[in-house]
Amino acid sequence: MNLRRLIPAFVAGALMLSAGAVRAEKKKELRYVDAASLTIIGKTMETPAPFQRVDTARYELWQPVKRYSLYSTGLAVVFRTDSRTIRARWTTGGTSLGHNMVPIARKGLDLYIQRDGEWVYAGFGWPKMNADKHESAVVENMAEGEKYCLLYLPLWDKVLSLELGVDADATIEAAPTPFRHKVVVLGSSITHGAAAGRAGMTYTARMQRDLGIDFLNLGFSGNCKLQPEFARMLAEMEADAFLFDAFSNPSGAEIRERLVPFVETVRRAHPTTPLIFIQTEVRETTNFNERLRKFEEEKRAAAEEGVKALMKKDKNIYFIDSKGMIGTNHLGTVDGSHPSDEGFMHMAEYLEPKVAKILRRYGIR
Amino acid sequence: MNLRRLIPAFVAGALMLSAGAVRAEKKKELRYVDAASLTIIGKTMETPAPFQRVDTARYELWQPVKRYSLYSTGLAVVFRTDSRTIRARWTTGGTSLGHNMVPIARKGLDLYIQRDGEWVYAGFGWPKMNADKHESAVVENMAEGEKYCLLYLPLWDKVLSLELGVDADATIEAAPTPFRHKVVVLGSSITHGAAAGRAGMTYTARMQRDLGIDFLNLGFSGNCKLQPEFARMLAEMEADAFLFDAFSNPSGAEIRERLVPFVETVRRAHPTTPLIFIQTEVRETTNFNERLRKFEEEKRAAAEEGVKALMKKDKNIYFIDSKGMIGTNHLGTVDGSHPSDEGFMHMAEYLEPKVAKILRRYGIR
Repeated sequence: MNLRRLIPAFVAGALMLSAGAVRAEKKKELRYVDAASLTIIGKTMETPAPFQRVDTARYELWQPVKRYSLYSTGLAVVFRTDSRTIRARWTTGGTSLGHNMVPIARKGLDLYIQRDGEWVYAGFGWPKMNADKHESAVVENMAEGEKYCLLYLPLWDKVLSLELGVDADATIEAAPTPFRHKVVVLGSSITHGAAAGRAGMTYTARMQRDLGIDFLNLGFSGNCKLQPEFARMLAEMEADAFLFDAFSNPSGAEIRERLVPFVETVRRAHPTTPLIFIQTEVRETTNFNERLRKFEEEKRAAAEEGVKALMKKDKNIYFIDSKGMIGTNHLGTVDGSHPSDEGFMHMAEYLEPKVAKILRRYGIR
Repeated sequence: MNLRRLIPAFVAGALMLSAGAVRAEKKKELRYVDAASLTIIGKTMETPAPFQRVDTARYELWQPVKRYSLYSTGLAVVFRTDSRTIRARWTTGGTSLGHNMVPIARKGLDLYIQRDGEWVYAGFGWPKMNADKHESAVVENMAEGEKYCLLYLPLWDKVLSLELGVDADATIEAAPTPFRHKVVVLGSSITHGAAAGRAGMTYTARMQRDLGIDFLNLGFSGNCKLQPEFARMLAEMEADAFLFDAFSNPSGAEIRERLVPFVETVRRAHPTTPLIFIQTEVRETTNFNERLRKFEEEKRAAAEEGVKALMKKDKNIYFIDSKGMIGTNHLGTVDGSHPSDEGFMHMAEYLEPKVAKILRRYGIR
């Protein structure tokens, strides 16, 4: 028996099977709607473009924060449809991929559909690797009936346009946000979700779905250093609580210098709003690198001392320690610093009860 | 106070701090050795090139299996050094990135150092994004003293050369493999580690470190379909046990047609070696896609029926079911099919006690 001849026939047979399924779907007529006409959640302010986080004209921002402000990080589209198919056409802004990133998280889409009160992963929008005009099935061959949908947008690029395609005879309409309250999360690349597998895998998105409370993602990779302009931005915002991943980017010296004036600025606008400071993760880059370990220990000491001093005078300030936050097996990051989905799973499990307990005191539940 | 002027100065200060640390390291004189002169583990056979999995001249392979055979998937370098720094220079083979992949896993390096009997993550080799000649620190500023090191090679490319750099006055030498026995794992992209964050995060690498037993990775993305040539390859191999992720790629019909002759070929060479079949994962692509769900259910039924029928006649064949294997929160994959680090964590936790229990019966522990 000539195996070399036989095997390609097997392989070709299997490929045809799935290609056939794809062709059948594509033949169906679809109707596309502009996602901007549906419910957009995750925004802390009005912005000139629909899928943008921050209105850069209002603040004196620096690069790359200014660029990151235009990203769709943390944003999601909420809608109902009785379509059996959901496809998407979208355009991104041309950012290139980092060594620690998954393309789907960076430029792709991430869909959850509610089932028995739970948000269940339904499908992803497949981004092109070296282009910014994308078109993809998100989920196909669904049962009939209405679906309540939550579609997370890319973590690491602008979304210049987004259209959702449904069966020509199906309805699609804006649906109310499933999440209560507004907890604004200011943070580093950890919050920004640098090494997440999909947009809905960050710890803020997981906490959102798990607790039903809205966590609004203001992660600015590498640049969340207690700068006064961020304090001014938060001061102008409406929020029921603030959660801070504010000790991952600055040095110990920067924390000692900036924490008090930062909190003073926020407090002038939000005198009693809970401010919850998360200690920065214990980095896996420090398992053997003694110099980095010392640097990180200094940061953590400055953060803990600084927040605890503030807590003596302000009973609405909280500190959450980070021991075990990204797991205890030293495998929670992709590169020693940035949580993978494994790290984010641990992070959400660790933070949820602690954050929920604090928020409950303020009727946020 | 002009914030716009103030903030760049803060940022620049922080950048200088880390750039300074890097410069100090680079100034040190290093000595490079060819990693091929150290201990290479994870290989099921002799190969023409040192960092290659399969000798393609020995088998009638088809594409892309032939190409994947040249990859360094599952291979690792084992050595001892008293260096305080480990750097690497390596060349990869020019494969491009998939939408569900992390560049570090695809072309990068992944280092673990033993501490108190445990393999602890120590650092990664940073791959270039659009080039194949890489040079990177892996870990720096370590304490003095001897380190026992395990460096995983890229999951998804060839490694044409690899040199490790240590302090000029330090020793570096081949060290014995830390892993006992040889359990050969034949599998799909799940085993191949398509969406792992680093090379050491696949379920086979985790099981290797956790159990101390060598699991040799023969994952061939999309192409592990019980083909007779794979059976012939296993028949020629030395192994204490075989573990199969063999039901992820074929259809139900292919499983029904091919499983019996596949096992017969393996059994002629290995009459009593344990053959452990893992049921294919319950895919998250099937949460709402009813057509895919039916296709996957047919596969799983064919697999379970097929293996259970064989088990009636052969007491050294085993079947491990997959319910809950990649977790129960529907978040264990990047794209619905391929486990992320979160999925691999669940997979290792799920499989380890089940596989270890079977292996213990054969004195494999």
